[in-house]
Amino acid sequence: MPGDSGQGISARGRYSGRLDRLRQRLPALRADAILVSHLPNVRYLCGFSGSAGLLLVQEGSATLFTDSRYTFQAHEEVGGARVHISKQGLLRPAGDKLRAMRGRHRVAYARGSMTVAQWEAIRAAAGGRVRWAGDGNAVERLRAIKDAEELALMREAAELISKVYRQTVHVLRVGKTELDVAAEIEYRIKKLGGSGPSFESIVASGARSAWAHARPSAKPVGKYELVVLDLGAILRGYCSDLTRTVFTGRAPEKIRRIYAAVLEAQAAAREAIRPGRKAWEVDRAARRVLEKSGLGRYFTHSTGHGLGLEVHEMPRLGKGDETILQEGMVLTVEPGVYLEGLGGIRIEDDVVVKSQGAVNLTTAPRDQFEL
Amino acid sequence: MPGDSGQGISARGRYSGRLDRLRQRLPALRADAILVSHLPNVRYLCGFSGSAGLLLVQEGSATLFTDSRYTFQAHEEVGGARVHISKQGLLRPAGDKLRAMRGRHRVAYARGSMTVAQWEAIRAAAGGRVRWAGDGNAVERLRAIKDAEELALMREAAELISKVYRQTVHVLRVGKTELDVAAEIEYRIKKLGGSGPSFESIVASGARSAWAHARPSAKPVGKYELVVLDLGAILRGYCSDLTRTVFTGRAPEKIRRIYAAVLEAQAAAREAIRPGRKAWEVDRAARRVLEKSGLGRYFTHSTGHGLGLEVHEMPRLGKGDETILQEGMVLTVEPGVYLEGLGGIRIEDDVVVKSQGAVNLTTAPRDQFEL
Repeated sequence: MPGDSGQGISARGRYSGRLDRLRQRLPALRADAILVSHLPNVRYLCGFSGSAGLLLVQEGSATLFTDSRYTFQAHEEVGGARVHISKQGLLRPAGDKLRAMRGRHRVAYARGSMTVAQWEAIRAAAGGRVRWAGDGNAVERLRAIKDAEELALMREAAELISKVYRQTVHVLRVGKTELDVAAEIEYRIKKLGGSGPSFESIVASGARSAWAHARPSAKPVGKYELVVLDLGAILRGYCSDLTRTVFTGRAPEKIRRIYAAVLEAQAAAREAIRPGRKAWEVDRAARRVLEKSGLGRYFTHSTGHGLGLEVHEMPRLGKGDETILQEGMVLTVEPGVYLEGLGGIRIEDDVVVKSQGAVNLTTAPRDQFEL
Repeated sequence: MPGDSGQGISARGRYSGRLDRLRQRLPALRADAILVSHLPNVRYLCGFSGSAGLLLVQEGSATLFTDSRYTFQAHEEVGGARVHISKQGLLRPAGDKLRAMRGRHRVAYARGSMTVAQWEAIRAAAGGRVRWAGDGNAVERLRAIKDAEELALMREAAELISKVYRQTVHVLRVGKTELDVAAEIEYRIKKLGGSGPSFESIVASGARSAWAHARPSAKPVGKYELVVLDLGAILRGYCSDLTRTVFTGRAPEKIRRIYAAVLEAQAAAREAIRPGRKAWEVDRAARRVLEKSGLGRYFTHSTGHGLGLEVHEMPRLGKGDETILQEGMVLTVEPGVYLEGLGGIRIEDDVVVKSQGAVNLTTAPRDQFEL
């Protein structure tokens, strides 16, 4: 969102600091420039929030390439980088700038966010004296550790979505359609000052709750049904992500037991979080609890993920992710089980990694299961 | 949205027909298979609406690769293709399948939607006997021409957003913030049965209306201000896109004249649309009107774009786009002028190309400028 106010730090200082931390990674990448194409990375490094931008970070300078739709906005938002307004795409002028550098150069770029077509175009524009190298997710690694200003915003975004949840569950009624409930969630997000949902809200009831990524449908919420509510807000660019599952009525003993097991798995995962632990260990902590209850094979996704300017960031709390957790990381913790025909149960909070362990950012109640 | 009902045609028949039309393009691409990675293309060809899918279309078969989060959903939604649930990413099993084919093969893929990292992974998995070729936007070209079933849905999506606009402008008041108005728009989209907005709604008032892509802010709508409202809905996967500009009070003569010029440019563009014309000719028609009024240099974007499963599709009604318009294409027509400090005016409708010319899908009034 344009026009946000720096909290005690000038926009220019904030972005110059981030750009300098990125430049410090250049020697390890054996590169003398980084071409940043992933838009959340562009925003993180220089503040530009438009939908077409390419940022070239060199030793002594940085240049944002965008187009004429964003002339005013770029000049208002951008700090730490010069703005170049292009009339002929963004790859061409960025390539021209690389071509104009004297001598041989090695430029790092993100293989995972540049398309083959873009890559061919920029290579052609930059010419043969430029060598290309992977960027090793350098910007994503910086972004994984949030600074104080970011944490304050994320706490607000988490508080906002918790409030939306409390209001929504208060007015949730049997007979409302899933789409109705989703509409109310997204309306409240904006009314409470969020710029919008951080993803399409999930309201999945009855058998549909067993679809981990169901979209809201015209199905009315029935009596004696599981309802998975997965919602998130964007506040000044930063995301929150919250899931609660409720049962519309008094739940059968079997479903109560599953709910208790998921709750226990989520607590175990949160307790497993502390600086120095590896991402996969948090996943194992949740998985072990569910396996002990015979539910392991119904837990079909990983335990969580990083959260920030994007709703899915590094690390992934799942098998094989060796990322070492560090203070300042913000993570979701969201084990779930899905039984075809019966339904699904997922419980998710956002936490920040502190020296003493995970501290919750979301504040919605976890003990309010039966409505 | 899962569970939509075919209108007189079975889901399986619909998707088999589309897959067959794609297969007919294989000889021209000199390929014997197409790997489809862009998700709207996957959805168009086989119905799968999840967020992780890769579709391999071969002469006698088609296979959708997705992951275990989508097991139920894929089996419910997909027609015309087999479903392969993968536990180790999607590129690897798709590559394995290509590697298992006997003899040498040439596989077409979309350079513009596959990242360099994905491309490297699938090339490695498929092995050296597979040659790769661009897909020439084969699926996008099919998608540009809508069939009767798609047109019925798009008419509904356009009618829905027109209704949302009429309701919104009826309750638009000086003092409401841009975010409030956007919240009401998106709430109404869902209450009227849409699955959500097709893009983040734009509500830009006063000087901010000069930003063609402004995001709604906490700024209240003031008296005697221009307000650009750009909104769209998704209905069963298909997008609408509508812009109107209003003035909160009696407008000064200068602003009235600009509004009349934009209105005239929009009418000229709609009148320029007919089968056989080229996309750039429609843009020229709008641009000439604005140039005649001395406003040409404030019209900083192209006149419109294709619309369908995505909010921006082929063709682009702008300079250099040589696409020949055909019956069944759905296009936006949206000239605009933006004067720094003063504000912006844009008027946009969705039209379908018929033998006699452009037929409007959106029905919001264009003559209700002063509120």
